[in-house]
Amino acid sequence: MSTRAGIVVTGTEVLSGWISDRNGPWVSQRLRETGVEVAHLTVCGDRPDDLLAQLCFLADQKVDLIVTTGGLGPTADDLTVATVAEFSGRDVVRDATMAQTIESVIRNWRKYSDDLPSSIVASIEKQALIPEGAEAIPPTGTAPGVAVPATDELPAVLVLPGPPRELRSMWPAAMQTGPVVRALTDRVPAILQTIRAYGLSEPDLAVSLTEAQKTVDGFDSLEITTCMRGGELEISTQFTENAASAYDALAAFLVERHSDRIYATDGSQIDDLLIAGLAGRTIVTAESCTGGLVAARLTDRAGSSAYMLGGVVSYSNDVKTGAIDVPAEMIAEHGAVSEQVARAMAEGVAAHLHADVAISTTGIAGPGGAVPGKPVGTVCISIAVAGRKTITVTRHFRGDRRQVRELTVDAAMHLAVDALADATR
Amino acid sequence: MSTRAGIVVTGTEVLSGWISDRNGPWVSQRLRETGVEVAHLTVCGDRPDDLLAQLCFLADQKVDLIVTTGGLGPTADDLTVATVAEFSGRDVVRDATMAQTIESVIRNWRKYSDDLPSSIVASIEKQALIPEGAEAIPPTGTAPGVAVPATDELPAVLVLPGPPRELRSMWPAAMQTGPVVRALTDRVPAILQTIRAYGLSEPDLAVSLTEAQKTVDGFDSLEITTCMRGGELEISTQFTENAASAYDALAAFLVERHSDRIYATDGSQIDDLLIAGLAGRTIVTAESCTGGLVAARLTDRAGSSAYMLGGVVSYSNDVKTGAIDVPAEMIAEHGAVSEQVARAMAEGVAAHLHADVAISTTGIAGPGGAVPGKPVGTVCISIAVAGRKTITVTRHFRGDRRQVRELTVDAAMHLAVDALADATR
Repeated sequence: MSTRAGIVVTGTEVLSGWISDRNGPWVSQRLRETGVEVAHLTVCGDRPDDLLAQLCFLADQKVDLIVTTGGLGPTADDLTVATVAEFSGRDVVRDATMAQTIESVIRNWRKYSDDLPSSIVASIEKQALIPEGAEAIPPTGTAPGVAVPATDELPAVLVLPGPPRELRSMWPAAMQTGPVVRALTDRVPAILQTIRAYGLSEPDLAVSLTEAQKTVDGFDSLEITTCMRGGELEISTQFTENAASAYDALAAFLVERHSDRIYATDGSQIDDLLIAGLAGRTIVTAESCTGGLVAARLTDRAGSSAYMLGGVVSYSNDVKTGAIDVPAEMIAEHGAVSEQVARAMAEGVAAHLHADVAISTTGIAGPGGAVPGKPVGTVCISIAVAGRKTITVTRHFRGDRRQVRELTVDAAMHLAVDALADATR
Repeated sequence: MSTRAGIVVTGTEVLSGWISDRNGPWVSQRLRETGVEVAHLTVCGDRPDDLLAQLCFLADQKVDLIVTTGGLGPTADDLTVATVAEFSGRDVVRDATMAQTIESVIRNWRKYSDDLPSSIVASIEKQALIPEGAEAIPPTGTAPGVAVPATDELPAVLVLPGPPRELRSMWPAAMQTGPVVRALTDRVPAILQTIRAYGLSEPDLAVSLTEAQKTVDGFDSLEITTCMRGGELEISTQFTENAASAYDALAAFLVERHSDRIYATDGSQIDDLLIAGLAGRTIVTAESCTGGLVAARLTDRAGSSAYMLGGVVSYSNDVKTGAIDVPAEMIAEHGAVSEQVARAMAEGVAAHLHADVAISTTGIAGPGGAVPGKPVGTVCISIAVAGRKTITVTRHFRGDRRQVRELTVDAAMHLAVDALADATR
């Protein structure tokens, strides 16, 4: 049987939905990459009773390892270490090395005289407490992590801080602690493969998977999950080495049935295909409804200055006419949200900024702005490629303002990849 | 005692960290707004045993209501209804009204002849099954929700679909179902107030809260959570009506101690203050390292065309010189990341796009690009306000590329608000 783990994310701010949890998904991915099956992820507030109940639940579920995040700060509501100690039936003891480490981190941040303020001393003393017999993990901030060994009855517990940067930088050391290494000895490395499609619905995929179940040998050894993300459908499959041929058969089956929708079987994202499609050409943007989101997407990756020159956010009509030469009469005749204007924006920005390729968007993101024949969600997207006929489309997206803007960015990325593929034929 | 609830988010794609959970936080906020205390949020994969274990755990924790999201689709791995039925000791029965509703939704999407394909019929029949004695909630997509009544031993269970848009549109009807109304009769409405600060550290706030605990009457009746979000610190406090004076005392205490850092006590965000500060003036952007994120932020809100004209993403030096007149000699002498260039960008874009106010950013987001004296994270931000001296600063942010870009957007928003306040003095 494979190694099972549970993750406990602590923090009233996460439980209350005030912030989204960045640690649970990250830890889950890291564990799965090393072949650990994550069975449960739980979130609790800053109440020790609730945390203790979740730890006991995970122990009842016979997980081999529990990873907790958060609750290691200097304040009184940071109770994870004390609660984990109670859970594992251990006293807390002062770790002198950690106390020294934390003090030097703090002195490195601020200049203090020899005597630290009493509030700082209290913080250090609190954060230097660990369950007896546990292994401390040196902090990146001021909170050390803790690895508590498993016993015959209880799983190992890895206690990590909440700030994502601290947690991530401490992860490699945490994975090397004795309690974690011993808890993970039985693991079977898992392989994760992802197929990405655009414009394929989940129900259509479900029909195909039902067919595949009948025809693909070893289908049941594949753990398949599907996920819509904007206009994209991601099909992720997890399997062990001995099911690799079953996965290959599944992938071939899906590609055959949905060749027009599946755009990557090797984990590539549309951003990768766009960069490849540019093949050294430069790109710029002219955005109205997306207001900079396409440009932000194109500058998201390190090294993007190799192909991305910049863009114009032509939100007002004056900027459309003044900065990228969209004729005012054209806007008056067809409206700012029209294929004519989208095309003029793309060609205008390419000319103005001297680029080989241009993406433009103009649409009605809502909630207001609808006009007869152009409901909220109407978006025109245009791709100009030097030496080619400009490609322009109109799409109708459903959703709120944020969703329409996001779906537009996805659609623009895909249309650009298609246009570049056409242009190289 | 207040009403307690648990939330169960299902889906291997969430548990695995492949997508971030948008439903848990949303449901949690809605429940808290109506005075329900969310005690636990759990995430499980598509395995019925794990889901059943989480439902039993929440029942053991004596919650009054369980809300589940996801697992209502037409495919074989969508097992929530069957598992909830097992949990509540009920058989599943066919709901004829729901079967009709789902069929009409599907026929509305696609034209089918009278006889539906057998795969579609199977989907409809599966999605029309509900636990005996439960109340069905009409679907927005094809998946009905279900409200299962509480018993003496078991909490009420509200079963909702996974797609966020479906869940959100079905929420009002779900809150009106008999099982939910009865489960929530004991609730005490809670008040949530938020104070926002910029440039205040969590440890400094912790010291203040420790002081407040000694001096503010009724402090212990306030549930305070703090949360860093980029460069901003959010202090959220939840309390019932009878603790309102304690909250007022706390807010006054914090404002007095951190008047230079706290920018809003009424829940306003910096975006609100910027719009107020503009007071009818227009704004544009010139962005290098943020690549469109500031413009996207300024066009994030409905109605932003009233003040936001547009902007230029001057990612390459040629766009800086060609589109917004940054002198090439200035870039050669001081570097693209310099206060001189930031100022020229802000003033240049304001002039070119005929705006009253301009924000510019130029910096090294990393991971590459550092030069001697300008490490990764060095960012220059400039705010030009018509008729005023342009304000320009250099900041050094820590973090990865994404963090540096986000911290730059936050800093630019705050600097703009400060500059507009100065300009009105």
